[in-house]
Amino acid sequence: MVIMMKLNSPKEDLEEVIKKIHSRGCKHHEIWGTEKLAIGVTGQTAALSEEEFLIMNSVEGVYRVSKPYKLVSREVKSEDTVINIGGKLIGGEELTIIAGPCSIESRQQIFDIAGELKEMGVKFLRAGAYKPRSSPYSFQGLKEKGLEYLSEVKKELGMMIVTEAKDTSTLPAISELADIIQIGARNMQNFSLLEAVGELSNVILLKRGLAATIEDLLMSAEYILSQGNYNVILCERGIRTFETYTRNTLDLNAIPVVKKNSHLPIIVDPSHGIGIWDKVPAMAMAAVACGADGIMIEVHNHPESALSDGFQSLTPKNFKALLNKLEQLAPIVNKKVDVNVAIA
Amino acid sequence: MVIMMKLNSPKEDLEEVIKKIHSRGCKHHEIWGTEKLAIGVTGQTAALSEEEFLIMNSVEGVYRVSKPYKLVSREVKSEDTVINIGGKLIGGEELTIIAGPCSIESRQQIFDIAGELKEMGVKFLRAGAYKPRSSPYSFQGLKEKGLEYLSEVKKELGMMIVTEAKDTSTLPAISELADIIQIGARNMQNFSLLEAVGELSNVILLKRGLAATIEDLLMSAEYILSQGNYNVILCERGIRTFETYTRNTLDLNAIPVVKKNSHLPIIVDPSHGIGIWDKVPAMAMAAVACGADGIMIEVHNHPESALSDGFQSLTPKNFKALLNKLEQLAPIVNKKVDVNVAIA
Amino acid sequence: MVIMMKLNSPKEDLEEVIKKIHSRGCKHHEIWGTEKLAIGVTGQTAALSEEEFLIMNSVEGVYRVSKPYKLVSREVKSEDTVINIGGKLIGGEELTIIAGPCSIESRQQIFDIAGELKEMGVKFLRAGAYKPRSSPYSFQGLKEKGLEYLSEVKKELGMMIVTEAKDTSTLPAISELADIIQIGARNMQNFSLLEAVGELSNVILLKRGLAATIEDLLMSAEYILSQGNYNVILCERGIRTFETYTRNTLDLNAIPVVKKNSHLPIIVDPSHGIGIWDKVPAMAMAAVACGADGIMIEVHNHPESALSDGFQSLTPKNFKALLNKLEQLAPIVNKKVDVNVAIA
Amino acid sequence: MVIMMKLNSPKEDLEEVIKKIHSRGCKHHEIWGTEKLAIGVTGQTAALSEEEFLIMNSVEGVYRVSKPYKLVSREVKSEDTVINIGGKLIGGEELTIIAGPCSIESRQQIFDIAGELKEMGVKFLRAGAYKPRSSPYSFQGLKEKGLEYLSEVKKELGMMIVTEAKDTSTLPAISELADIIQIGARNMQNFSLLEAVGELSNVILLKRGLAATIEDLLMSAEYILSQGNYNVILCERGIRTFETYTRNTLDLNAIPVVKKNSHLPIIVDPSHGIGIWDKVPAMAMAAVACGADGIMIEVHNHPESALSDGFQSLTPKNFKALLNKLEQLAPIVNKKVDVNVAIA
Repeated sequence: MVIMMKLNSPKEDLEEVIKKIHSRGCKHHEIWGTEKLAIGVTGQTAALSEEEFLIMNSVEGVYRVSKPYKLVSREVKSEDTVINIGGKLIGGEELTIIAGPCSIESRQQIFDIAGELKEMGVKFLRAGAYKPRSSPYSFQGLKEKGLEYLSEVKKELGMMIVTEAKDTSTLPAISELADIIQIGARNMQNFSLLEAVGELSNVILLKRGLAATIEDLLMSAEYILSQGNYNVILCERGIRTFETYTRNTLDLNAIPVVKKNSHLPIIVDPSHGIGIWDKVPAMAMAAVACGADGIMIEVHNHPESALSDGFQSLTPKNFKALLNKLEQLAPIVNKKVDVNVAIA
Repeated sequence: MVIMMKLNSPKEDLEEVIKKIHSRGCKHHEIWGTEKLAIGVTGQTAALSEEEFLIMNSVEGVYRVSKPYKLVSREVKSEDTVINIGGKLIGGEELTIIAGPCSIESRQQIFDIAGELKEMGVKFLRAGAYKPRSSPYSFQGLKEKGLEYLSEVKKELGMMIVTEAKDTSTLPAISELADIIQIGARNMQNFSLLEAVGELSNVILLKRGLAATIEDLLMSAEYILSQGNYNVILCERGIRTFETYTRNTLDLNAIPVVKKNSHLPIIVDPSHGIGIWDKVPAMAMAAVACGADGIMIEVHNHPESALSDGFQSLTPKNFKALLNKLEQLAPIVNKKVDVNVAIA
Repeated sequence: MVIMMKLNSPKEDLEEVIKKIHSRGCKHHEIWGTEKLAIGVTGQTAALSEEEFLIMNSVEGVYRVSKPYKLVSREVKSEDTVINIGGKLIGGEELTIIAGPCSIESRQQIFDIAGELKEMGVKFLRAGAYKPRSSPYSFQGLKEKGLEYLSEVKKELGMMIVTEAKDTSTLPAISELADIIQIGARNMQNFSLLEAVGELSNVILLKRGLAATIEDLLMSAEYILSQGNYNVILCERGIRTFETYTRNTLDLNAIPVVKKNSHLPIIVDPSHGIGIWDKVPAMAMAAVACGADGIMIEVHNHPESALSDGFQSLTPKNFKALLNKLEQLAPIVNKKVDVNVAIA
Repeated sequence: MVIMMKLNSPKEDLEEVIKKIHSRGCKHHEIWGTEKLAIGVTGQTAALSEEEFLIMNSVEGVYRVSKPYKLVSREVKSEDTVINIGGKLIGGEELTIIAGPCSIESRQQIFDIAGELKEMGVKFLRAGAYKPRSSPYSFQGLKEKGLEYLSEVKKELGMMIVTEAKDTSTLPAISELADIIQIGARNMQNFSLLEAVGELSNVILLKRGLAATIEDLLMSAEYILSQGNYNVILCERGIRTFETYTRNTLDLNAIPVVKKNSHLPIIVDPSHGIGIWDKVPAMAMAAVACGADGIMIEVHNHPESALSDGFQSLTPKNFKALLNKLEQLAPIVNKKVDVNVAIA
């Protein structure tokens, strides 16, 4: 940490700053310049906050030079985290493909879609039973009934299940069923929920919030790891900007940045990210091209009558065409796709 | 709702659209232009979603012309909502003043600050027992102990208590104590929490999320009202933009916009909004000048050693100077301030 | 400037960094911590760029601790700049009122509006002859004809003229006429234009760009001052955010921040800022309440048939009501308004 | 255009609206709903503005259902524009590669870099002679001298030149030399400059502004086309968001969106977009994967001593590695790369 003192600071102000540094067991180092005095602080600076110095007389700026996250950082663990779920590896050479409808709408619907996906070789089925919706009047999901259908799909088709937990009260039931528990963008800083999933052993898929910086995302992951659950997958799904031609602004820049700073796997959800079905394949390709460990895509048998997010869902046919393209792209970025789609 | 069809749409596509409109019990009206065909839809259009039409062949755009919120809207209730808490009115002519420290840090601390505020005539004490923090390593609040101290303050000083609920599990204890339950910015779209407070009779203070549009804020309030709790106060506290000289961008534009569209009271939290203590009074003045029903200010006896948010907290002395200014400003915007600060 | 070295940097990398520091005539200071090595740099660091160090091996971060602007800064000139135009002072105790239509539309129109404003005691008339418009098909202003009408108004009514220069080729004609030359938001980083007005003696009104940080705004002002023209007024007029209920997000936070960092006067344009006429008075009041040195308001005799910006223009009647309110507000923030509007 | 009237609008207000519609030679169509009255407007609605209706009594909303751009639109020209410069095609099957240093720094420097690029088969050399910089104290380019060196490079090496025009006064000299004239992000809405380049026959590379929506970008291109110059290449180079780990937020979503709405070619500048050299190749790959017609990359022989933008520049060696990857990627998205880099 470096503290800048104002021009011509009175001696007492400087002494107050130094006293506080020492009172926290840290050391100070004065760097006298022609215009300013910089005070370097060394020792366990994680215990200090910028704000407690900023508020002091004559202090002009405080610069923290270490990152605030630890467990998720490459400084703590330099090699990539690879998560093994039922023999499938997430975060290594395999490109993870997660697909399925936004919401479970009926037993028939989820079996139909899951069946088609399984046939293509997709191992991870995404489908929501509890849906966070911005309007109280929108379809909120089939809830318990939805979990039941998912459970049947899991048993009968042997697919791994990715589904969202929107609160702690439904977490036990979801935890029992889900292979991967999704924390949605609007809950990325629901810290009570983060702590709760941090105590589970399920794999957690943590989506970036609409106003979350990359650092915020990593800090939220840190919450989960700090409770003991190291099986966390990050997910870029678009941030909110001034642009109105797209639903959100999918921020693919986050992929190489996260890869540099963290050992955790990161996947991309282009369906929510751009929000317009005919542009989803382009963004899925881009995601893989810049280094994502996988993609999560909304697929629906009848997008035009979907109860939620139909406008951003691919039909199975369009999804299959995308898988075919991804199979060609993956080797170029040193990834493998394990699906059953013949290269056209 | 208005649906625009693409140039030269085939007849079957048009028929499909009309069939869907009728199947939902709505009527259609064709408007033939020189370039496009617009289809006006009338009836219970709230049951229709833009997306289910956007996904159809030849549909180019869908425009919803009614607002998605109802209960919070001035169209449903044209006169201002005025909430009565223990004889104090929020949302009418009285300017509501809420003040106190970010966090309860000790019994002594909260009694000291509350005592000073009471002396100035402040009726509402804000103080957090459960603190949502972006780092798991930051001070998380005194929790149950904090509620105990607040409860003592309430009994001994007779102040009304504003405190945050960050999850449903701590809600019963908070509901028993708090006169006003705060829902923080990061929980604005924690819909399970919104539904839970919608079933209480406490007054709810709903803060705008960092990436929330004004419409999102009103929709989250709609969640609470739709569960039966009509005692909702909105709170502008800053959105996230590219600006880095301030902590957030306090969006005062939201005040006249909300006042036009909704009957609910709205207050402003300039402490979080701008995030720099010496600029808080200016923004508090601006908030009242543009029509806010009240302000919520962080006040701390010793900002330089506060465990959280010290950098944005006013000392009691500076806060008193602000109250003095507000007393002068209020009558100009047809408000009254009920405090004991002599006009200088 | 402080340079952070990576953990376990090889000795040669450190030596390279130190060599570069010395080669620029600066000194280095090593601060050894438990995790990192910080290198303090002192001397004429303005000549160094962050990037030339960031690119070096083992360098993890570079922190510039001085501000990049000089002439506009309070560190160089601590007292407020007060600009005298024809006896009217801008930036001191007087609250500057600038009003008029977006565009000059006809001789009659500009004389009508100017006449009404003069009667209210307004000294500064704003009106555009050259209009930057996002569409090439929109009304682009009356151009030379517009300047002619303005010149007549100036002569006959004795008002001071504020008008925009959108390029260097029309600058000579505008410079001859205008008391204050406006640089529009979209030209805030048109550096050739900034340099050109920096060589004039007219007062320059520099509007903040839609994506400009406060620092960017100050740097653009620095361009003008560095050419020798110290008569610069800054203008906050709204930034671009995700909010869609308002045209822009008027960022009043900029007022106290600029006041702290710069000696230049700053005014507010709430008409463009919020963009909806019936909400303009609220934001004008807020602007003055938080310390703005003046306001610039669009006023039109017939907003419903204005050729541009009618939706954000006040009628003379509504503007007069606002002036009345401002007269009451000004003394509370230690300002005076010099208009002829009787307090109601 | 559709105009929504408020609930219970008085008959006179409705009549006023209809009168105005007719006075502009358009027709109206009433659509009576249960809650609102919608008025469809048909005819030459391009002549109407939303604002002139919004300002009228009882009008609640105005929705323009056609796009404001014409010449750049796929509705006017459905097939892709392919620009031929000296036999190289931009916008078709060829993937365009533009590379070079941010600034020309010396004769030696530009010849060295250009020589290496030519050897790799790069046909388009980018290099700035006039540099728009946010600080007046930063290196502003070699100006005329820079153009001279570029002219020599062009003659001796036969490369095509891409260089920026930052104002109209230097445009003649640049126009004579440049094969492609670049309009920088900060000048995207410098309409006088747009009109000036619209009268030239050079190819224009128009970069997206930091706060520009995709529609704004297309409208600025419309300015150029409307003056008669149809040779416009669009360029995505990052927008400004709240994220601070990257210099800008490269918005690749713009690629498929522009491709859908416009026939113009669009390329991507990942160097400015993400702003960190070691993450540039990942974003370049992503750009091509989602359909960009080309990329523009900053390459410098000695990034650590570059006078500008060194931190985002690739060395020739790293750039060559990227070209190699792009050669593998291109065929998957139906593009060809014409360079001399052997596939490793």
